[in-house]
Amino acid sequence: MKRHFDDEMNILKADLLTMATLAEKAIYKSIEALNKRDLEMAECIIREDKKIDELELKIEELAIDLLATRQPLARDLRFITTGMKINAELERIGDLSVNIAQRTRALLAYPLLKPLIDIPKLAEVAREMVKNAIDSFVQQDENLAKDVILSDPKADNLRNLIYKELIEDYMCIDGKTAPRAVPLLLIARHLERICDHATYIAEFVIYMIRAEVVKHHPEKLEHS
Amino acid sequence: MKRHFDDEMNILKADLLTMATLAEKAIYKSIEALNKRDLEMAECIIREDKKIDELELKIEELAIDLLATRQPLARDLRFITTGMKINAELERIGDLSVNIAQRTRALLAYPLLKPLIDIPKLAEVAREMVKNAIDSFVQQDENLAKDVILSDPKADNLRNLIYKELIEDYMCIDGKTAPRAVPLLLIARHLERICDHATYIAEFVIYMIRAEVVKHHPEKLEHS
Repeated sequence: MKRHFDDEMNILKADLLTMATLAEKAIYKSIEALNKRDLEMAECIIREDKKIDELELKIEELAIDLLATRQPLARDLRFITTGMKINAELERIGDLSVNIAQRTRALLAYPLLKPLIDIPKLAEVAREMVKNAIDSFVQQDENLAKDVILSDPKADNLRNLIYKELIEDYMCIDGKTAPRAVPLLLIARHLERICDHATYIAEFVIYMIRAEVVKHHPEKLEHS
Repeated sequence: MKRHFDDEMNILKADLLTMATLAEKAIYKSIEALNKRDLEMAECIIREDKKIDELELKIEELAIDLLATRQPLARDLRFITTGMKINAELERIGDLSVNIAQRTRALLAYPLLKPLIDIPKLAEVAREMVKNAIDSFVQQDENLAKDVILSDPKADNLRNLIYKELIEDYMCIDGKTAPRAVPLLLIARHLERICDHATYIAEFVIYMIRAEVVKHHPEKLEHS
């Protein structure tokens, strides 16, 4: 019986890793589609979100079954409830990648507004934060989770830079750029939200490790 | 012992209702602050989000304790895991209200761009969706939950109208309006996200009632 529970826990872990890989790939591809102005790739992200949605449901069912039939305690209980929450965050990251792809599709109706520099930079921050957040979960690495949380202000700063440039250097000077500048501005917002979701995941991981709460308590974030 | 478990379940329900009331109030006040150009009210929403954050943590602790110490089955298990998820959605709604208040604060540096019509309309849709989603949970009312899900496209349409007007009738014609138009556009995006969170809550409720999944399966939404 013990063996069987471990097997189910391993399936849960493996499925969560697959979910994380799909989410990371969606972010990467959504920015590739924007950079390369590739409509087919944008459409592909929108279509493939279905896989992320289906896996989310599968993981949730598995987690609730484990709670119901195994009545796990302490460490396992925390792992399963944390896994459920990470699962939901990854699904949202998939949705945000779809939002980016939709905005990219809208942009392709117009010529390029400007060479993209800060948006790919923000996308790279987002992808790295998601990757590290998941790694911190798999390796139960509290310091890595803290690094994720501490890099969130970098994302906020980049988003603010992008907003400022699009508003002051483009829209204010030539209002006709708005239909091309606004989608870029929303893409920056979506990327910054992805960073927020990575931060939530890192907070859950620390919570799980410590069985104590750091969320809403940044003073507990000094490296141990 | 049975009595004690019921008491704890009642505390969980009562806390979730308080959380819902706080979230609903935050939406309402964030739009009031925008309508009345009231800086003090905007600051108040930002300050009071701490209460929502604290209650979120309290509810989560209580739910995990219930799972760990009571090992609830079937209906109770679904209620507690659904409660945990609704709790997280309500906290995000609180955060989005803070985002609206922050954008309002930025807007107050400038004269009014235009009388607001569609944004308060969208805010009303958002508040009603959140209210109905929570009512559907409390009353275990599947049809009310379905109504919430079916009204989400109304929110998307309103947001699209708002985007279109701000871009085509303001920014494109006079680029200098961008610093006032962009925050309004982001507020519309935040409100539409609040509607999404209400939709998620309604999906969880249906899932709990049916112990079956409607999420990502809109064809299961016909009224029963």
